[in-house]
Amino acid sequence: MIGRVLRFGMETQQQWFESFRSFISRFVEISDRQFDDLKAILQTTYLRKGEFFEGSTPESVRCGYIIKGLIRTYFITEDGKEFTTDFCKENDVTTNYDLLTSDFSQEYTSEAVEDSIILAMDHGRFMELAEKHPPLQVFKNALIEYYYGEKLNREKSLLSMSAEGRYLRFLGTHQHILHRIPQYHIASYLGITPVALSRIKKELRDE
Amino acid sequence: MIGRVLRFGMETQQQWFESFRSFISRFVEISDRQFDDLKAILQTTYLRKGEFFEGSTPESVRCGYIIKGLIRTYFITEDGKEFTTDFCKENDVTTNYDLLTSDFSQEYTSEAVEDSIILAMDHGRFMELAEKHPPLQVFKNALIEYYYGEKLNREKSLLSMSAEGRYLRFLGTHQHILHRIPQYHIASYLGITPVALSRIKKELRDE
Repeated sequence: MIGRVLRFGMETQQQWFESFRSFISRFVEISDRQFDDLKAILQTTYLRKGEFFEGSTPESVRCGYIIKGLIRTYFITEDGKEFTTDFCKENDVTTNYDLLTSDFSQEYTSEAVEDSIILAMDHGRFMELAEKHPPLQVFKNALIEYYYGEKLNREKSLLSMSAEGRYLRFLGTHQHILHRIPQYHIASYLGITPVALSRIKKELRDE
Repeated sequence: MIGRVLRFGMETQQQWFESFRSFISRFVEISDRQFDDLKAILQTTYLRKGEFFEGSTPESVRCGYIIKGLIRTYFITEDGKEFTTDFCKENDVTTNYDLLTSDFSQEYTSEAVEDSIILAMDHGRFMELAEKHPPLQVFKNALIEYYYGEKLNREKSLLSMSAEGRYLRFLGTHQHILHRIPQYHIASYLGITPVALSRIKKELRDE
């Protein structure tokens, strides 16, 4: 399921484009013409809760700017256990990493935790455009740098913190979207079972 | 301790430069003139086992191409526990991450596990040069992309694998340098105590 492509009013769509452009401009200046070319490869995609955000073939992975909603990225181990690696909300870029690293072996899945609207783009088309427009390359590199920093922090907390410490840290880093994430997804992000998470929460309440 | 700067024969030094250039050429073509400018900011640095690889001030962090030796990068928690995040050997680039992300808050330390020789460079000077020579920017971005992929794998194994699983994976990924790393450093990379590592090794022997 790649999500429905819906038609929205021109005005609404224009606002969404402006929101994405303003996100990009945090990293790099982009000209009107460059942004027009980028707009031409964006596909407004609507996902219902529980639907997957992916391309129509394994190679056509996508990334996207979230207009509305919440996307969770996860992987599944050989013995069927699920682990969450990221939650991305509105005004963030979500990717199953492949767009960033061109490494299609990671096998992450992204799914909508809520009904979501995404300005999606295909990996190959974005890379072609970035060849032509250097600011898009700068944008992509800035995103990788940002996500790399995030994964360094993640390594730190997974290596050195207890499950309780990781949960308390999560409460801080995800405070604005806590109420939107089911507990079992939080547990799978912390690398513990939902039962262990309940115990931690009870212990914290009893303290 | 920033390591001694030694003088070596021109011929030896020339070989080291060629080795670094050949490493760079795996990612991007670099012209003679561009590489000459890069050579001008390289400082051949000799570290004895146990010495730290760092700049003379917190801002003058460095990264370097390892000619010989083994460098370990780690961080220390508030309660004094040490965790290893990387081992880099000859013909690799070592960094305490800051060169890559310009984020000086991570507070990693790099130390020589063996006597080491490094072609070191200062963060600020490298970035200046990369402004002038786009291939150096491409090289830097390729390194970040590579290390980002490494940290994704690291997240996966820390989230989803048991300590024994992580140890077995480590045996595979670090097989060529296993005999050069003390057991307590391996334990600190796996996020377990040396005692727990001994127990895992014993259990694997007994199986």
